[in-house]
Amino acid sequence: MHFLDNQRKVDYVLVYHYRNRGAHPIHGSLSHPRAPLAVISNGEMGKEPNAAGQGNMMIEMGPLDALEAEKKEQREEFEYKLMEAGLELEKDLESKSQGSSFVRIHAPWQVLTREAEFLKIKVPTKKMYEIKSKGTIAKKFNDVVQKMTSPLQPRVPEHSDKMKNLSYPFSREKMYLYNIQDKDTFFDNATRSRIVHEILKRTSCSRANNMMGIHSLIAHNIYEAAYPLHDGEYEGPEGDMNDRKLLYQEWARYGVFYKFQPIDLIRKYFGEKIGLYFAWLGLYTSFLIPSSVIGVIVFLYGCATIEDDIPSKEMCDETNGFTMCPLCDKSCDYWNLSTACGTARASHLFDNPATVFFSIFMALWATMFLENWKRLQMRLGYFWDLTGIEEEEENIQEHSRPEYETRVREKMLKEQKTHVQKMETDKTESDDEDNDGLTWKDRLPGYMMNFASILFMIALTFSIVFGVIVYRITVAAALSLNKSTRPNVRATVTATAVMINLVVILILDEIYGAVAKWLTKIEVPRTEESFEQRLILKAFLLKFVNAYSSIFYVAFFKGRFVGRPGSYVYVFDGYRMEECAPGGCLMELCLQLSIIMLGKQLIQNNIFEIGIPKLKKLLRKLKDETEPGETASSELKHPEQWDLDYSLEPYTGLTPEYMEMIIQFGFVSLFVASFPLAPLFALLNNVIEVRLDAKKFVTELRRPDAVRTKDIGIWFDILSGIGKFSVISNAFVIAVTSDFIPRLVYQYSYSHNGTLHGFINHTLSYFNVSQLKEGTQPENSYFGQEVLFCRFKDYREPPWAPNQYEFSKQYWSILSARLAFVIVFQNLVMFLSVLVDWMIPDIPKDISDQIKKEKSLLMDFFLKEEHEKLKLIDSAQRSPKSLTPSFRHSSRHSSQSQRGSHASSASQHTIV
Amino acid sequence: MHFLDNQRKVDYVLVYHYRNRGAHPIHGSLSHPRAPLAVISNGEMGKEPNAAGQGNMMIEMGPLDALEAEKKEQREEFEYKLMEAGLELEKDLESKSQGSSFVRIHAPWQVLTREAEFLKIKVPTKKMYEIKSKGTIAKKFNDVVQKMTSPLQPRVPEHSDKMKNLSYPFSREKMYLYNIQDKDTFFDNATRSRIVHEILKRTSCSRANNMMGIHSLIAHNIYEAAYPLHDGEYEGPEGDMNDRKLLYQEWARYGVFYKFQPIDLIRKYFGEKIGLYFAWLGLYTSFLIPSSVIGVIVFLYGCATIEDDIPSKEMCDETNGFTMCPLCDKSCDYWNLSTACGTARASHLFDNPATVFFSIFMALWATMFLENWKRLQMRLGYFWDLTGIEEEEENIQEHSRPEYETRVREKMLKEQKTHVQKMETDKTESDDEDNDGLTWKDRLPGYMMNFASILFMIALTFSIVFGVIVYRITVAAALSLNKSTRPNVRATVTATAVMINLVVILILDEIYGAVAKWLTKIEVPRTEESFEQRLILKAFLLKFVNAYSSIFYVAFFKGRFVGRPGSYVYVFDGYRMEECAPGGCLMELCLQLSIIMLGKQLIQNNIFEIGIPKLKKLLRKLKDETEPGETASSELKHPEQWDLDYSLEPYTGLTPEYMEMIIQFGFVSLFVASFPLAPLFALLNNVIEVRLDAKKFVTELRRPDAVRTKDIGIWFDILSGIGKFSVISNAFVIAVTSDFIPRLVYQYSYSHNGTLHGFINHTLSYFNVSQLKEGTQPENSYFGQEVLFCRFKDYREPPWAPNQYEFSKQYWSILSARLAFVIVFQNLVMFLSVLVDWMIPDIPKDISDQIKKEKSLLMDFFLKEEHEKLKLIDSAQRSPKSLTPSFRHSSRHSSQSQRGSHASSASQHTIV
Repeated sequence: MHFLDNQRKVDYVLVYHYRNRGAHPIHGSLSHPRAPLAVISNGEMGKEPNAAGQGNMMIEMGPLDALEAEKKEQREEFEYKLMEAGLELEKDLESKSQGSSFVRIHAPWQVLTREAEFLKIKVPTKKMYEIKSKGTIAKKFNDVVQKMTSPLQPRVPEHSDKMKNLSYPFSREKMYLYNIQDKDTFFDNATRSRIVHEILKRTSCSRANNMMGIHSLIAHNIYEAAYPLHDGEYEGPEGDMNDRKLLYQEWARYGVFYKFQPIDLIRKYFGEKIGLYFAWLGLYTSFLIPSSVIGVIVFLYGCATIEDDIPSKEMCDETNGFTMCPLCDKSCDYWNLSTACGTARASHLFDNPATVFFSIFMALWATMFLENWKRLQMRLGYFWDLTGIEEEEENIQEHSRPEYETRVREKMLKEQKTHVQKMETDKTESDDEDNDGLTWKDRLPGYMMNFASILFMIALTFSIVFGVIVYRITVAAALSLNKSTRPNVRATVTATAVMINLVVILILDEIYGAVAKWLTKIEVPRTEESFEQRLILKAFLLKFVNAYSSIFYVAFFKGRFVGRPGSYVYVFDGYRMEECAPGGCLMELCLQLSIIMLGKQLIQNNIFEIGIPKLKKLLRKLKDETEPGETASSELKHPEQWDLDYSLEPYTGLTPEYMEMIIQFGFVSLFVASFPLAPLFALLNNVIEVRLDAKKFVTELRRPDAVRTKDIGIWFDILSGIGKFSVISNAFVIAVTSDFIPRLVYQYSYSHNGTLHGFINHTLSYFNVSQLKEGTQPENSYFGQEVLFCRFKDYREPPWAPNQYEFSKQYWSILSARLAFVIVFQNLVMFLSVLVDWMIPDIPKDISDQIKKEKSLLMDFFLKEEHEKLKLIDSAQRSPKSLTPSFRHSSRHSSQSQRGSHASSASQHTIV
Repeated sequence: MHFLDNQRKVDYVLVYHYRNRGAHPIHGSLSHPRAPLAVISNGEMGKEPNAAGQGNMMIEMGPLDALEAEKKEQREEFEYKLMEAGLELEKDLESKSQGSSFVRIHAPWQVLTREAEFLKIKVPTKKMYEIKSKGTIAKKFNDVVQKMTSPLQPRVPEHSDKMKNLSYPFSREKMYLYNIQDKDTFFDNATRSRIVHEILKRTSCSRANNMMGIHSLIAHNIYEAAYPLHDGEYEGPEGDMNDRKLLYQEWARYGVFYKFQPIDLIRKYFGEKIGLYFAWLGLYTSFLIPSSVIGVIVFLYGCATIEDDIPSKEMCDETNGFTMCPLCDKSCDYWNLSTACGTARASHLFDNPATVFFSIFMALWATMFLENWKRLQMRLGYFWDLTGIEEEEENIQEHSRPEYETRVREKMLKEQKTHVQKMETDKTESDDEDNDGLTWKDRLPGYMMNFASILFMIALTFSIVFGVIVYRITVAAALSLNKSTRPNVRATVTATAVMINLVVILILDEIYGAVAKWLTKIEVPRTEESFEQRLILKAFLLKFVNAYSSIFYVAFFKGRFVGRPGSYVYVFDGYRMEECAPGGCLMELCLQLSIIMLGKQLIQNNIFEIGIPKLKKLLRKLKDETEPGETASSELKHPEQWDLDYSLEPYTGLTPEYMEMIIQFGFVSLFVASFPLAPLFALLNNVIEVRLDAKKFVTELRRPDAVRTKDIGIWFDILSGIGKFSVISNAFVIAVTSDFIPRLVYQYSYSHNGTLHGFINHTLSYFNVSQLKEGTQPENSYFGQEVLFCRFKDYREPPWAPNQYEFSKQYWSILSARLAFVIVFQNLVMFLSVLVDWMIPDIPKDISDQIKKEKSLLMDFFLKEEHEKLKLIDSAQRSPKSLTPSFRHSSRHSSQSQRGSHASSASQHTIV
């Protein structure tokens, strides 16, 4: 954790591989003075003497191949520049012929203060103030809640809820403001490493084509890795506690799944960005609790009312004896509707009025969730002292990506060449386009490729969905030939088809993740931030289409292009389009949704998130055992923290974690009308997911750089987009997929006694069997009675009407009702959402009060300071003999004010 | 413009009325030293000696009544505190027995710098930088545009487009950064007065119940007015130019209506808030140009195709001979459809397919407008150096409103009383609720009152609309009794009814404005900002309902509850619900809309904005002439600027200006499908409106306080709300009010040859005349042939069908089509809007680049400074004998860094 002198803390580690045929040990610790002082004061020239000093070593290192030497020089220049920036380095001896070498970086106090001032890092001042307590009742209620939830609270040292330090951006001119007790611990480890990281990012290396920052160097393999150190080991004796161990014990174990997350500690250890992710995940999970409770209630309501449901009773009643038209040509027979009794009853579980209520609830729930997230974000921002940061301020720290710089350099080289050629052939035309960036011309191929690839991927997804449809149709037809399997045909086919869908989704999910990354690289975005944003959008688009297209098909398209008896629609010769089960498509939608959602979560969690990392670890262990080098043995004795951290996986961003949750959010919200249990399953998954992710961050990854951010960025937009889309999709599910509207219309317009009796009869049209096309009649009808008319589910004119089999008036009136429902539902829910959005202020009342109070306290603080200054001037003017330094300062001030005011000397007194 | 010494600029003026029976002149200029120095240095005790010094005067002023004396003391305390804050005051002699006295305030340099630092006012530094020019083609294009528009540019000295000063919040510690040439003009007049205003706002007056700020004092009549001075006169010789005159010549005259607005100058003179209003108005007006062009084209398309329109030709064709059912009971006769030929042809002007296209265009136009406004706002924010300001930062300057403070004080007094009473009766129960604010309990009556009043107002509006309906029905019935007037009945009735509507709207508009203000006062909001917001919301709600309810009625309800022949719906005995004209309701909607919109604009502009101020001026002049006091004569000789400004109207905020425009925006967007010429009329109005408002601000109002703001606040939300609502309303206008969908359905489903031939016949249902109810048949039918069946406009089953007069299948299918259109239109347009919103970045690319560049320049600037500091340390360490002040400073620094770093002395060198 420290330099060899055991005093200076290691804030950052750079790792590189070296190959060293001649085993000359080169400068053990770089922090010793190597260059004379003169060199440093004219910094621009710094690299010359360095290179010269390096020159004689070069001769010694002749046997090294050129590339390696080049890299070595680049490293040395970079490290020299770091030292120039004030950092202190320590390096291992490159004693072995080849291996990894660690450069350990320490940021001394001077550097920390300078950078903290530039980065406007807010630090606590001496001034404390009390956070306004609420009214008596609210306070008591709060106390009770706190007492009740105390076993759920993680046992970590918390900042007090009652008092808060006034924070102010660090400024070296106002040192007296801050409560600096120990300069080693005033900035915590995350802040220290962030400061070092900033310096690493902006330090360029002139030898390596003027590449900016450590990320370029890593991209060009000059360094291998760069990471801050973990705070220590997460397991071990109780005695030496550190934040990492604390996090492990109170957060990153399955054993504490019931506890709240120690968000402040997470933020302190991993930085704001990761802190916000876990805060978001926590809020989402806790919001899933009420919705899963209500979902279960809705489901239970369905179970309880199943016996009272008139339509399903009518369907099951054999005495009604609806003779249905055959489900396939030739081999299928007429059948009695009562045989589909089971599905009808099952479908009532999800297709009942409570579902409508539930989907309105869930739409508002989504809005509430987003609003509350905004509030929580503000609250955290306040306690984490992020209120002053602007977005633009963050952006200046964004440097170009290495890939982008390479492209620009290539382009410039090329242009120079063509320019030279042009100059030779034609001297009049000189185009002075600005070369400091890629124009849309350079990007066009990338964009085209992107567009084409995404279209192709989406087409691929759709064709797979279509393939599964064809599979279902053909297999169902094939199976229905065999008499013995017939009863289970539908179940078998549906189940296998969903399984195929699931497997395809899982495979494509991984592929699309990689494709999205590749496509974004082709685009060559300039900054890391825009890279991330583009990647997220692409990956989201592809994964969204992948996960939901089969579900969308079942919800809105399946069974709608069947045609009617006598003029069926055929996919290809002899195979009719598939129909929904007699109970309605909602049942199938529910099945599809639940299997895909559960399967995706279970398999992704178990295999991809637990299994594969374990496998990787195992493989690495095996590899280590097969090559038992000298390194391993030396490390085993007493491995340093940087060795331990180096053996962990590098941190690669939060995108996959967010993506998984967002897709899940889609399952929970988009089709919640068809599957009220979705929130419950999501809740169960997330309780595990939180700890899984926590464990990964604490034990399996190198410590990520602490990134300061105010919000979760584009994810919020995607979430609110899904929320809005879910309103429309639920409106259509209720109106079009479920039988809710037809039942309502029947009850109020057609029913004789206002009940649903006769509803089933009403939904079935008649077909004159004699009009069946030649060759499509059932071949061997075992059906008991003589069949004159068979029935099918549609609203069409009966055979005896003048315009037979046209859509009937009922069809149109029910369609009108369905569409009217969509309009009303969509606009009502959207209006309610806007209302909720508007009613809940984005900034919690107490926080905005606190912020105001903090500002005015700060104002008072400075005014007081001002006053004291003036007093000093005053006393100085009275006793002009005393020449204390403070007077020197203030007298400068007063002379200024004398120059400044053109007032008469009389009024001068009143100014003072 | 200056103090009597002709040197110190007057930055602010306070006015009060005094009554002075004993004519003792009291201290001519307060800027003379009155209190000894000792008093000032211990500022808290300041008011004691002042009061004491005042004491002996009090005795002299015995005859003054107590209230006046009290006010005088409060004024004196306040003015003393202002001086204590560093301001310099000058006062007129209170020579007359009563009159207005002016307190002129000057802010000396020292105060300006102090406050500028607190307020974080950004000022230009010495550092200039070039604004990145665009690529060659864009640049050339830009030049051409600039050359072409140069006669449209106002001739004002503009800041260069190519160079910009780097701005940085003012800091007295970094004075060397700024380009301070003349301390009198470094801060411009608007900034100076803003600074004084800030001090005035936060200075309290302990004598007057500790009231905070000048606004409380004005509210309690202690002062009468407080305003900054105008820059001079706007008319007069060319020689002495000032910003006000420049604004008048280049902006605030009708003669320059074709020119762009000098936004930067407006902002410099009036501050950011008013600058943003005019920038917004300008953008809105210029956005109206394309939309009115397309609107005119759409209208001309209607005119051009009027001869080809088959339905109107069919209606006018007398050979068709559709015998229509009578329009009223008894007195009306059967009539031939061809008599309504005129309205049918007129209605085609607005009811054609181009309208659908136009309303999609307008929905996107609204989105584009809002997006472009966001961009313009960002751009202005960048050039006006507002990028660093946060909203919260602005809020701390918000002090409580005087009314609020009074209420809180009253409440506290009352509670103390009850508390005392309670203490006496019951000592155990002590409620320590925090008293520093009003709780919801205190506010409840206000809220209830608000809710009830708003409901009442809305009900009033609705009942007036209903009253006009009744008027129309009864008058139409009465007039139709008279044979001679019959042909003009409809036109007469409609026209008079709309006029009544218009007059009512105009009257209620004024009333509702006052009511909203009163209701907001009842609510007692804490800050000025929340007062404004609540007022705007209420006023908007009331005015919106007022302006649009009659239009909504015509668009969506008129003619829909008529019933059918044989079972008409009666409003009251004998009076049937009104129907739309045979050409469709769209024509009437158009009429209603155009008359209300035009009438409102013309009358409000002419009478309320031009007429009434003129009248007020005239009245005041008359009044002045009747009381020719000594004041008038002395002022007439050589009126000072503060006298002139005092005679102007006080500035009362931008709310009415915005409100007028927002209501107009509603007319332009909400029903644009029915009236494509609306944008044109709005454009014509706005060209005048801009100059009208400009004239008002430059010539008729006192100079407003410069308010720094980043955006137009709640108006933007209201605008985007109207934009969203307009999508739905246009969808319904096209689907429900116009005949677009029925025509489409007829053409593609019912027509034999795919044309509209036979459409009119299709829309008319048959009615068996013999089924007319007893007593409702036409009394004296002069109709030529024998009438068996009459026709009416509806889709119902014919008399010969089994279920006669029920809605027919056509009805339901057309209804489905209408609803489907609404869904498709709404979601498509909303999706397109989101897409447009997403495609156009909120921050223009060049501005975000500039902001980044500016930040990095600032960073470099400071790093360089840092470097120089280090060099100084270095040179100081080498020659420790020289003791220059700069060394003193830097040595303090280096000793600090020595204390700071725990490194060994060896590494110390590398740090430096």
